[in-house]
Amino acid sequence: MALLIAVKGWDPAPWAERMKERLPEHEIRTWPDAMGDPRDIEYVLTWKAPGELLNSLPGLKVIFSLGAGVDHILKGQSLPDVPVVRVVDPDLTARMTEWITLQVLLHHRKLPTYAEQQTKRLWKEHTQPGTAEVRVGILGLGVLGKDAAEMLVRFGFNVAGWARSKKAIEGVECFAGAAELDAFLARTDILVNLLPLTPDTTHLIDHAFLSKLARDGVHGGPIFINAGRGATQVEGDIVRALTDGTLKAASLDVFETEPLASDSPLWNLPNAIITPHIAADSDPAALSTYVAGQIRAFEAGKPLENLVDLKAGY
Amino acid sequence: MALLIAVKGWDPAPWAERMKERLPEHEIRTWPDAMGDPRDIEYVLTWKAPGELLNSLPGLKVIFSLGAGVDHILKGQSLPDVPVVRVVDPDLTARMTEWITLQVLLHHRKLPTYAEQQTKRLWKEHTQPGTAEVRVGILGLGVLGKDAAEMLVRFGFNVAGWARSKKAIEGVECFAGAAELDAFLARTDILVNLLPLTPDTTHLIDHAFLSKLARDGVHGGPIFINAGRGATQVEGDIVRALTDGTLKAASLDVFETEPLASDSPLWNLPNAIITPHIAADSDPAALSTYVAGQIRAFEAGKPLENLVDLKAGY
Ligand SMILES: NC(=O)c1ccc[n+]([C@@H]2O[C@H](COP(=O)([O-])OP(=O)(O)OC[C@H]3O[C@@H](n4cnc5c(N)ncnc54)[C@H](OP(=O)(O)O)[C@@H]3O)[C@@H](O)[C@H]2O)c1
Ligand SMILES: NC(=O)c1ccc[n+]([C@@H]2O[C@H](COP(=O)([O-])OP(=O)(O)OC[C@H]3O[C@@H](n4cnc5c(N)ncnc54)[C@H](OP(=O)(O)O)[C@@H]3O)[C@@H](O)[C@H]2O)c1
Repeated sequence: MALLIAVKGWDPAPWAERMKERLPEHEIRTWPDAMGDPRDIEYVLTWKAPGELLNSLPGLKVIFSLGAGVDHILKGQSLPDVPVVRVVDPDLTARMTEWITLQVLLHHRKLPTYAEQQTKRLWKEHTQPGTAEVRVGILGLGVLGKDAAEMLVRFGFNVAGWARSKKAIEGVECFAGAAELDAFLARTDILVNLLPLTPDTTHLIDHAFLSKLARDGVHGGPIFINAGRGATQVEGDIVRALTDGTLKAASLDVFETEPLASDSPLWNLPNAIITPHIAADSDPAALSTYVAGQIRAFEAGKPLENLVDLKAGY
Repeated sequence: MALLIAVKGWDPAPWAERMKERLPEHEIRTWPDAMGDPRDIEYVLTWKAPGELLNSLPGLKVIFSLGAGVDHILKGQSLPDVPVVRVVDPDLTARMTEWITLQVLLHHRKLPTYAEQQTKRLWKEHTQPGTAEVRVGILGLGVLGKDAAEMLVRFGFNVAGWARSKKAIEGVECFAGAAELDAFLARTDILVNLLPLTPDTTHLIDHAFLSKLARDGVHGGPIFINAGRGATQVEGDIVRALTDGTLKAASLDVFETEPLASDSPLWNLPNAIITPHIAADSDPAALSTYVAGQIRAFEAGKPLENLVDLKAGY
């Protein structure tokens, strides 16, 4: 019985090697070149595998997504009726919290203003509000949103979050569902997106959405930080919001199409910070160990962890 | 009996007003215009008061420095033999930790590289080491150094610190005194300065000093972050180190002369980030409350807190 590495756009060889080391008693195969008899395959480790492939494996028991998000395999295709496990990794979570904290502090401490002044050799102090005066709002209070929220609370920010279900996180005001979205946005100065991409969240963040953010905050206009998924935003609307003053600034790590097209107007908006989907890379060694651990537990009759709710799409 | 506000370069009026509110039973005076009879003055709240003034007050009981540092009054002048109290304020400490964390994360997460790429519309990921692989070293483990160290430990950095006396801070490797300085520098990739300015620390950080930093770190060269005092560094040497590769990059909030001269070469070094001494502003309201509280306690026979060691100079 075999494990298949089915990754698009990545080299499967190092993944195969790492899995061989960790599961020496399993046969490791790679798609598309060394797949062997499809009937042998029990586990697939995948990034963007086509649905046809996944549906052509009669002995398939578990699909492992090699990313925290699963939109890369759920999007526009139906999957076989087997459990899908996604990545939850403390190292990945920590990296995301670093990137979010960095971007929030950067805007809060007016670094773009000071950088601009530096180019003019201008020494000029600006009034600096305290963190308690700044309302951060986090879209998505899952593994990543919760961890980022807790770090921002530690820095003294006034933090709220929004999820599908009502959460209880110490020091964080929790909003839930469509009914409470407007109230959440109305009290938010710095909006952080850590939602997964699902049918419900696709293109959720458009101009009308951003127009609902607080406009009476100490930073003189709302700031948008997106490290979730690019297609949760309407990119043209982000550009418009950054140009017409609906947003004061933005930090974007994810885009509707990646790599971001070189002719995208986002690249040279003076109030946009662009990073190339690097907020939280997963460490391949840690991921391989995680998947191997789950396979061993599964074969010992224990339940799989971090299962995806295929109906909800995340 | 009276309290004197003696500040240079600041407007004394709002300070006088705040102190009147908090100590209505005390007479509040301001230097140089409304000082009255020098013999009445028991307390001085000061920023850069001349030694002559302080030495001309026969009834003086306590000097309160309106800054965390006291170099502004100790430098090159002798003071009357009364206790000197400096500012220790949780809000100021928190602001410093924000600024330090921001600068460390900014370099760690390669923001200057991504900003440069953005100007070229270039989408390119770089390998991102984990925080555990990065050795941060903090010069000064006082109120500010300790708090910053603890936050950086929380982010997973490998943190060490250096002070005059041996400290014990959880998760932080502590070095002490001249004898252990070289070992501390040799294990440091990101150097953070939070030393006070004293005769011992003046011009401590020169080219030779920076040359002792680790050169085998994951970021390809040492990074220097200074939010202590400008005169602890030899500015010409910082420029040289940033130009000849001894330093990979720097973030500087303090300078030998402030404001930084508009013809300083620091302004347009591509690898220097300059902010105008804004790392940790003190909140005048909080400071006034702090000083009033100390005066009340002192008059009730309790000991003064946060006394300066005049011999050590901090
Ligand atoms: N930029 C990067 O480098 C990077 C790296 C890793 C991950 N990511 C992205 O980050 C996303 C979040 O990861 P995670 O591990 O935190 O996911 P998660 O644990 O599944 O959390 C998702 C959160 O979003 C909420 N949510 C989902 N649909 C919603 C809706 N329609 N309305 C309101 N709330 C909704 C969920 O609410 P409930 O709690 O009520 O279910 C949950 O709180 C991933 O899906 C991925 O797209 C980006
Ligand atoms: N940029 C800004 O906005 C800003 C704002 C506030 C303060 N500051 C600066 O930050 C400085 C530090 O503040 P703080 O409240 O942390 O001061 P602190 O509590 O007095 O701590 C000073 C630290 O430096 C160490 N130290 C002093 N002289 C030394 C020497 N010769 N060799 C080795 N270590 C030495 C002390 O060692 P021991 O612990 O052994 O005594 C102590 O750990 C202030 O003096 C001020 O200059 C800057």
